[in-house]
Amino acid sequence: MASGQFYLSCLVLGSLGSMCILFTVYWMQYWRGGFAWDGSVHMFNWHPVLMVSGMVVLYGAASLVYRLPQSWVGPKLPWKLLHAALHLIAFILTVVGLVAVFQFHNHSNIAHLYSLHSWLGITTVILFACQWSLGFAIFLLPWASLWLRSLLKPIHVFFGAAILCLSVASVISGINEKLFFSLKNATKPYASLPSEAVFANCTGLLVVAFGLLVLYVLLASSWKRPEPGILTDRQPLLHDGE
Amino acid sequence: MASGQFYLSCLVLGSLGSMCILFTVYWMQYWRGGFAWDGSVHMFNWHPVLMVSGMVVLYGAASLVYRLPQSWVGPKLPWKLLHAALHLIAFILTVVGLVAVFQFHNHSNIAHLYSLHSWLGITTVILFACQWSLGFAIFLLPWASLWLRSLLKPIHVFFGAAILCLSVASVISGINEKLFFSLKNATKPYASLPSEAVFANCTGLLVVAFGLLVLYVLLASSWKRPEPGILTDRQPLLHDGE
Repeated sequence: MASGQFYLSCLVLGSLGSMCILFTVYWMQYWRGGFAWDGSVHMFNWHPVLMVSGMVVLYGAASLVYRLPQSWVGPKLPWKLLHAALHLIAFILTVVGLVAVFQFHNHSNIAHLYSLHSWLGITTVILFACQWSLGFAIFLLPWASLWLRSLLKPIHVFFGAAILCLSVASVISGINEKLFFSLKNATKPYASLPSEAVFANCTGLLVVAFGLLVLYVLLASSWKRPEPGILTDRQPLLHDGE
Repeated sequence: MASGQFYLSCLVLGSLGSMCILFTVYWMQYWRGGFAWDGSVHMFNWHPVLMVSGMVVLYGAASLVYRLPQSWVGPKLPWKLLHAALHLIAFILTVVGLVAVFQFHNHSNIAHLYSLHSWLGITTVILFACQWSLGFAIFLLPWASLWLRSLLKPIHVFFGAAILCLSVASVISGINEKLFFSLKNATKPYASLPSEAVFANCTGLLVVAFGLLVLYVLLASSWKRPEPGILTDRQPLLHDGE
């Protein structure tokens, strides 16, 4: 039954994650003029799509690799490689998403990194880069001792979850900011809740729901790799063992 | 040493939390004209102060009651009462903070609940109300069975942490939105990063740092009530036991 509930959660997560991406694409395509790679506002439109896809949906999926029952048996290395590879793809999408907004700002003479959204977002990306590099160096390369790994594992897991929280907060403030920019001088301002505003607000809440479900499966569920790992025996991921 | 580290964390948390509140008060007092209770924008100024104080700082402090070593010995009921009472005060501050913004909107003919910030914020407050009521009914009143309590405890702990995440995301989007409102038509727009913008952005990052440290102490540290509780013996808070 636990396994059935896990796959049900995966189904819900897959649906929510797909909806987050599709809703963001539809918002940009239908109301914001679609996509281009030319420094215009259509280049900016890649920014929300790539951040939601990379920093939230793919990041969330990559975080949950060790919750798959298939990962509970056999060697851990292939799953570590998958975990690292998915996070690397998420990071690449994120960097391309940053390039989109920086080039748009350059093209339109808009200052970089002034809003709290941008400060939090860039902090999140820097933390993600540190987390990935440290994870690669400590948990994938063979040099680190078991002592060092078991010392750093709870911190790695905590920051993995924390970065997802910060990503979601960045996305929320970004959608909010974008709607104030886009619906400022229109005949239908944001405050009159035109269909674009309702749609984008719902997209934000979907991102929140996806993030919370990932955190639940990651931190609070009992779907954890149960067999003796390379670190400690049956160690709860957020605890040093009791 | 573990106890020393815990009190060091408390010191850092206390300092960060106080700074979050003081910075928000200073922002509203120095740059936004101070406080009143008259429906004007000065009444609105209570909104960020009360939300940061109630939904983040006091909520965070209330969440950590069971991490105090003093709570580890003796009966649990007084600590439960303290946990519930602090959360109730946090909730009252939150409701007063909502009254401030709703009355300001009424007074100035501004639409209610249109931005993603407001949608997420009101969702968070509703979840907080459900969480408190359910916690009161299940864990404080004597009728619930041990089975029901141990079933719901991990969910209570998870939603406790989740609501704090949502509060921080709401605060971030709120500060961002307020700065775009306030620094829109000034000679120094938000994009030129006047001192108010830098100060308020830093306030936002302080709120994030406070929230992350609370989550770390709550979820990832080993400072947990170790003695047999009323639910299960030495049960990690986020697990059903292994």
